[in-house]
Amino acid sequence: MYKAPVEEIAFTLKHVADMGEALSNGLFGDLGEDLVDAILSEAGRFATEEVAPLADIGDRQGARMVDGEVRLPDGWRDLYRSWIAGGWNGLTAPAAFGGQALPNMLNVAALEMWNSGSMAFALAPTLTMGAIEAVSAHGSAALKDKYLAKMVSGEWTATMNLTEPHAGSDLGVLKARAERLPDGTYRIFGQKIFITWGEHDAADNIIHLVLARLPDAPAGTRGISLFLVPKFLVNDDGSLGARNDLFCHSLEHKLGIHGSPTCTMIYGDGRFGGEKGAIGWLVGEENKGLACMFTMMNNARLAVGMQGVAISEAATQKALAYARERTQGRAPGSTGAGMSPIVEHPDVARMLLTMKALTQGSRAISYACAHAIDMSRLAGDSRHWQERAALLTPIAKSFSTDAGVEVASLGIQVHGGMGFIEETGAARYLRDARIAPIYEGTNGIQAIDLVTRKLPLSGGDQVMGFIAELKAIAEAVSRSNLDGFGETAARLDTAISDLEETTAWLLAALADGRAPEALAGATPYQRLFGLVLTGCYLAKGGLAESGDGKGEGRIALCRFTAENLLAETAALRDRVVNGAASLAAARILLA
Amino acid sequence: MYKAPVEEIAFTLKHVADMGEALSNGLFGDLGEDLVDAILSEAGRFATEEVAPLADIGDRQGARMVDGEVRLPDGWRDLYRSWIAGGWNGLTAPAAFGGQALPNMLNVAALEMWNSGSMAFALAPTLTMGAIEAVSAHGSAALKDKYLAKMVSGEWTATMNLTEPHAGSDLGVLKARAERLPDGTYRIFGQKIFITWGEHDAADNIIHLVLARLPDAPAGTRGISLFLVPKFLVNDDGSLGARNDLFCHSLEHKLGIHGSPTCTMIYGDGRFGGEKGAIGWLVGEENKGLACMFTMMNNARLAVGMQGVAISEAATQKALAYARERTQGRAPGSTGAGMSPIVEHPDVARMLLTMKALTQGSRAISYACAHAIDMSRLAGDSRHWQERAALLTPIAKSFSTDAGVEVASLGIQVHGGMGFIEETGAARYLRDARIAPIYEGTNGIQAIDLVTRKLPLSGGDQVMGFIAELKAIAEAVSRSNLDGFGETAARLDTAISDLEETTAWLLAALADGRAPEALAGATPYQRLFGLVLTGCYLAKGGLAESGDGKGEGRIALCRFTAENLLAETAALRDRVVNGAASLAAARILLA
Repeated sequence: MYKAPVEEIAFTLKHVADMGEALSNGLFGDLGEDLVDAILSEAGRFATEEVAPLADIGDRQGARMVDGEVRLPDGWRDLYRSWIAGGWNGLTAPAAFGGQALPNMLNVAALEMWNSGSMAFALAPTLTMGAIEAVSAHGSAALKDKYLAKMVSGEWTATMNLTEPHAGSDLGVLKARAERLPDGTYRIFGQKIFITWGEHDAADNIIHLVLARLPDAPAGTRGISLFLVPKFLVNDDGSLGARNDLFCHSLEHKLGIHGSPTCTMIYGDGRFGGEKGAIGWLVGEENKGLACMFTMMNNARLAVGMQGVAISEAATQKALAYARERTQGRAPGSTGAGMSPIVEHPDVARMLLTMKALTQGSRAISYACAHAIDMSRLAGDSRHWQERAALLTPIAKSFSTDAGVEVASLGIQVHGGMGFIEETGAARYLRDARIAPIYEGTNGIQAIDLVTRKLPLSGGDQVMGFIAELKAIAEAVSRSNLDGFGETAARLDTAISDLEETTAWLLAALADGRAPEALAGATPYQRLFGLVLTGCYLAKGGLAESGDGKGEGRIALCRFTAENLLAETAALRDRVVNGAASLAAARILLA
Repeated sequence: MYKAPVEEIAFTLKHVADMGEALSNGLFGDLGEDLVDAILSEAGRFATEEVAPLADIGDRQGARMVDGEVRLPDGWRDLYRSWIAGGWNGLTAPAAFGGQALPNMLNVAALEMWNSGSMAFALAPTLTMGAIEAVSAHGSAALKDKYLAKMVSGEWTATMNLTEPHAGSDLGVLKARAERLPDGTYRIFGQKIFITWGEHDAADNIIHLVLARLPDAPAGTRGISLFLVPKFLVNDDGSLGARNDLFCHSLEHKLGIHGSPTCTMIYGDGRFGGEKGAIGWLVGEENKGLACMFTMMNNARLAVGMQGVAISEAATQKALAYARERTQGRAPGSTGAGMSPIVEHPDVARMLLTMKALTQGSRAISYACAHAIDMSRLAGDSRHWQERAALLTPIAKSFSTDAGVEVASLGIQVHGGMGFIEETGAARYLRDARIAPIYEGTNGIQAIDLVTRKLPLSGGDQVMGFIAELKAIAEAVSRSNLDGFGETAARLDTAISDLEETTAWLLAALADGRAPEALAGATPYQRLFGLVLTGCYLAKGGLAESGDGKGEGRIALCRFTAENLLAETAALRDRVVNGAASLAAARILLA
């Protein structure tokens, strides 16, 4: 059973993702280390004791449609209510609406723990938090006053309605339509699919944020507007009014995250009588809906990245516990009598250490991304930090979610035959993890974003400045003269050079108008960047003077990563720099 | 929907795995190319039209326990009967018992197609064929006469009973026991788990091969005997007699292969009255049971490798069909109006070509392994070919099944959000594929076998001779002067050198008594070997003069593999040669 790794999370926040420095510099106001520790500890307790025990029943029962109503798995309503009673939903939300206005870093760490407990459950607040952000940034004062407090408390949940059957990654072609009403509201019509927690029985109201097109809107993404469309209309005194003209038509039957209701939503069908069309309120300006979505995109993508980290952590804990208990065969060099715990077999140890390295690497990358988001709001050099967050976001999302799938799959392998049996629980991690590289922008789209929009930030200076920081870490390892690091310094040097040369090659390719060539290598480049960051952040952790007595282990994991995983960067560089021509030539096979 | 790639299979058999040469040399008797083509074509038709359409219902319904009886999914009984009516079960079985005594290569190719149609269904004959082999090789004349004909026809299915809860990879500790009876038969007692097709309603009798221990047996693997234990006793006239004292206690709830009943079997419980103990007949000699199992191990492991190939093929077909139909966004360089088919996006093309390369590479390796098995029975130099088969078997099993998981996972990714919806069918491939790296010896155990038992064959001459053959392929590419190969020759050279150097390093480590170090790199070495073989066999196919007009595409896929996938071999070599020390140091994290 999952136990939240509160100490490791706190260590990574403070010593790898620089929260310690930000706290010392007073950037987080009067937030102190003690409060950070207390919040992490209580979140860890809740995730371990309350959320995780309900994950299996959530998976087995799934969200169900009963007599046309969506029912959550047994116990989930109470779990959700107790979760919001803890104040967890408003951790980073504005104080004016009852939030605690705490740093994003803290929320991301907590998100990791909720997702390790149950990814399907954690999706509810993940979506609500995104909507709070969008309404906070772009909603009118009236909208904020009417909706935000209950969204912040979690009394009402919220959703994002983007996808339509023919419009997934390409939102420019969506067809949902909005009609202006004389009173300034709108009527919304259309069908939306894959709506996470679109309908359920744990909240009194559900606030849908819906992308739709006005009759006179320009074609493509410049003609999309964002609307707030509540399940129940809200009276001026805050009480609930009539049912709005929208409903959940059906639930998807999915590979994983069974407890999370994935809904097909119908707007404007007239099912509840009266005039057709769900009543909605404009968020932001007409035809600027996509810009509103972009506001929260960094956070939303990072939140999905946390799902990868979370699954990796939980799957690793489970596999390690099994490998320590299960005995089979005799490990080389075993001196005890009888069979060895399988953790002693080198091949099993390799799998577990790879799982640990990917978990800790993706965690560090994600927390560093959250740090950059916080810094962009609080530090002086906001443009620098906005760019840093923008650069890190696709890597955090893609590397962590790819790692989640890989680690969960290795976790099954460590369990042997038992891993294939559903009751063991290892298989659920793989089933849950598999969606994360797909939604909130597929990892292929993250790679396109990274290469074509993030590398050119500040004319390439942002990424090159970041690489210079990574070199400083490698130099610090070298200067440390710690035997435990083995060949780490040299390995980091080589890997960082691979990253630097590949980055330069991509920037040149973009500048030369060879975008198709650059795009052919986007995915291997993204992995290359994530691997280098993993090595560097593990080294930074190994170098940290945290005084927790775990330094030797951190250095050993860093060395394992450097000497066993980082050699892949040369192949990835080669794939980017030399791979496009053969990829283009082989397309005749796909015609 | 899956369509058997009969032409590509025939091409690979004849031109890559040297069936063409064997046919020309008359090694397969009067078997001619026409008959080979006719058999493949009819198997392809059956897999496409009869098996594949019942895969989804098999997955949805699964095998079920109804009133204590195991029921197959709807339609599967008829499917099985129609399949055995086609004579498919006895393709390679001895002619004396009604088999067709055809080459193993042909059966392996057919197995691929059955497994692409439905891996859960194909498991039934896979197990029966293994049992036929064991009884043919080690059974007494009386046992053969009584059982083989009906096992060969498929009228009776068969199982392998090895695993117990505490004895999975380590059979030395199994506890099932056998007692000698005065008439030369035995009574069997114990519990066996994970018994594939252990009970079902499609055959009149089920013949269990059971590993158990005699009272006076030596400890460990030298004290295990193999018994034939039929569900119904068989009278001397071949009619069915009394129910034997064994039954299926329960079915496992698994991640995939739902249609295949995975049974916990209880022997000697007395459930049907009478004296306790299931009556069994010794196969081979007492205490030599494991040797009997080893007889069929190459074939069984290769059969599991075919599951990987089969899933890769089916998942690739499905993803490619979707990517050609689904439009989204505009691909770079797109000139048409509107959205592009996603196959035109470079990142999607990269995924699909990787899927194709891994599919074709693992197919070629597996067919080459089958060729070696056939040659070891038919050609003059049987020791050479036995060794070649022994060397190729762990690679065929592990590389193909790892590829199956990777390709199925990429297939989901190509489908985007639809890939996560069960009705799409892409997710089932991942769920089914995930068991293949685990059973019939985990891929980690295959790697140990490869390094510690297969590399030292003939003092290392077998593997070094094989590598010399691979070099000849690279030289032939170089000599061909075909532009389409791009950098293939140089890439193959480098990759083969990586393999050669790593092999030499491992042989030296074993000779120096540094087995733990060698074992730490066994899994990366196995992958390295598989990748090099993939590159070489794709090149061999590209060089072949088959006259089917597909040479250009084969050369292009080979080039994509050489220039995009083979660079990984340097990292794998490094992991083997330099990775053990850091792995050992990091074990403090697993304590």
